[in-house]
Amino acid sequence: MAAEEPLIIRNKDEMRNWSRSMRAQGKTIGLVPTMGYLHKGHISLINEAHQHAQLIVVSIYVNPGQFSTSEDLSSYPSDFNGDLQKLMSVNGGVDVVFNPYDLYDYGSKRENECLEKRDKEVSCLEEKGGGHETWIRVENLEKGLCGKSRPLFFRGVATVVSKLFNIVEPDVALFGKKDYQQWRIIRRMVRDLDFAVRVIGSEIVREDNGLAMSSRNVYLSPEERQKALSISRSLSKAKHAAEEGEVNCKKLQDSIVLAIEEAGGKVDYAEIVDQESLEAVEEIKDPVVICVAAWFGKARLIDNIEINDWKP
Amino acid sequence: MAAEEPLIIRNKDEMRNWSRSMRAQGKTIGLVPTMGYLHKGHISLINEAHQHAQLIVVSIYVNPGQFSTSEDLSSYPSDFNGDLQKLMSVNGGVDVVFNPYDLYDYGSKRENECLEKRDKEVSCLEEKGGGHETWIRVENLEKGLCGKSRPLFFRGVATVVSKLFNIVEPDVALFGKKDYQQWRIIRRMVRDLDFAVRVIGSEIVREDNGLAMSSRNVYLSPEERQKALSISRSLSKAKHAAEEGEVNCKKLQDSIVLAIEEAGGKVDYAEIVDQESLEAVEEIKDPVVICVAAWFGKARLIDNIEINDWKP
Repeated sequence: MAAEEPLIIRNKDEMRNWSRSMRAQGKTIGLVPTMGYLHKGHISLINEAHQHAQLIVVSIYVNPGQFSTSEDLSSYPSDFNGDLQKLMSVNGGVDVVFNPYDLYDYGSKRENECLEKRDKEVSCLEEKGGGHETWIRVENLEKGLCGKSRPLFFRGVATVVSKLFNIVEPDVALFGKKDYQQWRIIRRMVRDLDFAVRVIGSEIVREDNGLAMSSRNVYLSPEERQKALSISRSLSKAKHAAEEGEVNCKKLQDSIVLAIEEAGGKVDYAEIVDQESLEAVEEIKDPVVICVAAWFGKARLIDNIEINDWKP
Repeated sequence: MAAEEPLIIRNKDEMRNWSRSMRAQGKTIGLVPTMGYLHKGHISLINEAHQHAQLIVVSIYVNPGQFSTSEDLSSYPSDFNGDLQKLMSVNGGVDVVFNPYDLYDYGSKRENECLEKRDKEVSCLEEKGGGHETWIRVENLEKGLCGKSRPLFFRGVATVVSKLFNIVEPDVALFGKKDYQQWRIIRRMVRDLDFAVRVIGSEIVREDNGLAMSSRNVYLSPEERQKALSISRSLSKAKHAAEEGEVNCKKLQDSIVLAIEEAGGKVDYAEIVDQESLEAVEEIKDPVVICVAAWFGKARLIDNIEINDWKP
């Protein structure tokens, strides 16, 4: 049986008032932040949220603060009605969909006033002009992996997540470990800034063939989708190799890069890093995670695999 | 009659639990963040807090994250028992003194691990090593005025205030307008990050002779204290000049610099800026504030005066 339609809230104050009235009734609130175009990965986050909180808020907001002007903000896929249908089919349902028109406040600044002053790369938020100027930086964790090719991305993510935390005031928030660096950054931010939110990382959800679920998979042609399997397959193979005693990270990485390139992908990075610090390691001695970003056609895909057991 | 001794809380969780239990009873909470060594300026903030909230939390914490290694963290004046006495004499009292030993979490990072990696100016917090790495930047407002000579200061202030907001969860927070740039930065941060806290700026409290109250006034010899009056006097004179029709900012600034230097002070800056954007203006056309920082002996003093009326 389909669940009830969730309450749709578009206004910040209304959202906070809802949360506060629920908390006053002793209810706990779980937040699942998304950019919409929901897939099974999101649904699994919501299912997991039900384990940790009595009420579930799913936010759907494509955040201009985390896209650089050369990225795919304007073409980012969306399907709000389809998303609602999917949310109604979730076991236990979803209580609120928080879908604000715009989360940012621009003050009285004129557009060109800001454009004139631009002396560095900016996000799509700043390109539009306006007075938002507060950014959260997780200075070490944001630097490597995706941070190298997307220098504004994690600044935008940390900032919008802190806004969502302050508006929704959840007890728990769920993030997919597919975005491994993002998950670590949010956890560190919560610790460093004392947010009263428990952050839970949820395991990667894959298609039957191994492809990690992503809204950006929609960019892939059927052929590219086939070729993109080289990512999850090479990660899986490297994990097995480590379990069999290959702890030299260069060798493991080289085999991943080779496999992806042979399949026609363009590797952005393939790195083996410490699970906590995300710093590159040369030899596996502590739990690590292998993180990959690669282009297939016009889709930049990321994937990763944790290695918690290996033969020294 | 002296008020009751406030509850002293040193632990973050205990602080948040207290606030939540009070909010559950429908009480509103006002926060007055301080670094201790309280003076009449702080007391006036507390008095004002009583106008806006039913319960008052005063935090006393000298934040290593806002001092650079060349500044006066280790010698910053403190007198916890004296502070308590002063708080007990406040009309209406103070409910909680939040006095944490350390607000930062260092994770498992070893001290020298961090020192080795240092490639830029750091705060006293980072000098001690450790894993705190999340910082809030209010990118435009933090740049000018005090930000020029104290590039890490507002990063540290914004970050620690956001921590205090997340721990104390106040409805209202009070800041002195003596720290004008700080007050504007906190207001902007609250707007940009959607903190559910109303920020109130409280007017500067001065000694009878005009000297702005500051914990750092204790560094002044009686002679320097006399000379330092040149700051408030020249500000006041410039305001009158503007009211009489002098709207050329360079002329007004020059007269302030001259007066302070003649008194033996060393001017860090004397600037006339827009009250909202803190951007320098050449001619007074909108409400402005004149901000001054100057050294007398080993004390760096700041002061300011708003100009809301002028003769064009």
